[in-house]
Amino acid sequence: MAKQKIPAMPSIRRLPSYLYIVQQAHQINQEYISGTVIAQELKLEPIQVRKDLAITGIVGRPKKGYPTTELMNAINRFLGWDTIQPAILVGAGNLGTALAGYEEFRLHGINIFAAFDAEKKKVGTSIHRIPVYPLSAIDKQVKKSGAKIAILTVPSEHAQEAANLIIEAGITAIWNFTNHKLNVPDHVVVQKEDLSSGFAILSVMMRNRDQ
Amino acid sequence: MAKQKIPAMPSIRRLPSYLYIVQQAHQINQEYISGTVIAQELKLEPIQVRKDLAITGIVGRPKKGYPTTELMNAINRFLGWDTIQPAILVGAGNLGTALAGYEEFRLHGINIFAAFDAEKKKVGTSIHRIPVYPLSAIDKQVKKSGAKIAILTVPSEHAQEAANLIIEAGITAIWNFTNHKLNVPDHVVVQKEDLSSGFAILSVMMRNRDQ
Repeated sequence: MAKQKIPAMPSIRRLPSYLYIVQQAHQINQEYISGTVIAQELKLEPIQVRKDLAITGIVGRPKKGYPTTELMNAINRFLGWDTIQPAILVGAGNLGTALAGYEEFRLHGINIFAAFDAEKKKVGTSIHRIPVYPLSAIDKQVKKSGAKIAILTVPSEHAQEAANLIIEAGITAIWNFTNHKLNVPDHVVVQKEDLSSGFAILSVMMRNRDQ
Repeated sequence: MAKQKIPAMPSIRRLPSYLYIVQQAHQINQEYISGTVIAQELKLEPIQVRKDLAITGIVGRPKKGYPTTELMNAINRFLGWDTIQPAILVGAGNLGTALAGYEEFRLHGINIFAAFDAEKKKVGTSIHRIPVYPLSAIDKQVKKSGAKIAILTVPSEHAQEAANLIIEAGITAIWNFTNHKLNVPDHVVVQKEDLSSGFAILSVMMRNRDQ
């Protein structure tokens, strides 16, 4: 993967949490939401909230706060979540099934329309109404749909092989839940999800508290 | 939860990746590993690697790099991963099952010895050799084991209720995979895992590339 500098990574990581809170306020017809309220909800400093949200191009209004509709739209636009994007799931095990059932993804514009698995007994079944195909069907399904995004949850030892297959088919963005660092061509972006990262944070919080 | 400032969050998030690489080098009896090699593996700048690893109190040696054994120990000690900690899993659904089977956790000192689920048909079964108990058994199991850590993967609408139960039993660190922001007493630390965060990063990478 080409080295890509993502500025404000921690801010970007927090945007989905902001979106969630603003959507809730919007649902109960709240026209404005104050930065202080958001900060309290997320246990952040108000200045951090202002800085984070500024990357989406929106600023709060004095005494009123952020207009909810505008803020929602700004976050969704910034993340590209204002359009629906077809995506495939490669690996229909426990983690894949959990992700396929994750309702938030639909709100974020991901439409997982097909899953693929190497296990014969899974082929022909469906997970959360998503049909499971054999790996050999990847090429056809990706080309037909124009999908660019793949969620990769195969066993780590098969990760590179699976990545090669999906890239060959036309996938250019991989959300990698395996432990394997993928080798991919420059035009492909990869976000590697390391579940241990969150546990590292929890561990440090425990240590700081107990010291 | 008491507001706790965790400095160097992004660095801490990366520590498990460093650990993984250093462990691999150590396994093939490499005495030293250079910061440049680590940087290449993780697609980071060498200066970032030096800064990240400095928080564990270790510095590389000129021309040689980092002594692998020392670096492994330093990271594990910094994260408190040098001791084995009993942990419970609350919610034995797909995500819980995936996490229970995640081998890295054992390397990080987490020993999930019991799972709990509200569904009667799951009680009495086991997932990855971990027995599944009813929620009513939490109190006894936590007290008996002295477990302080819980991984929470129940449906979001039952998250607070489950959190109350486990805190009452003696849990003081919750790794929260639900969407619910938990209300917990000051002595309890919570790390909320938001799966959408990683997708936000991937989305920005796609946008930056396509611009």
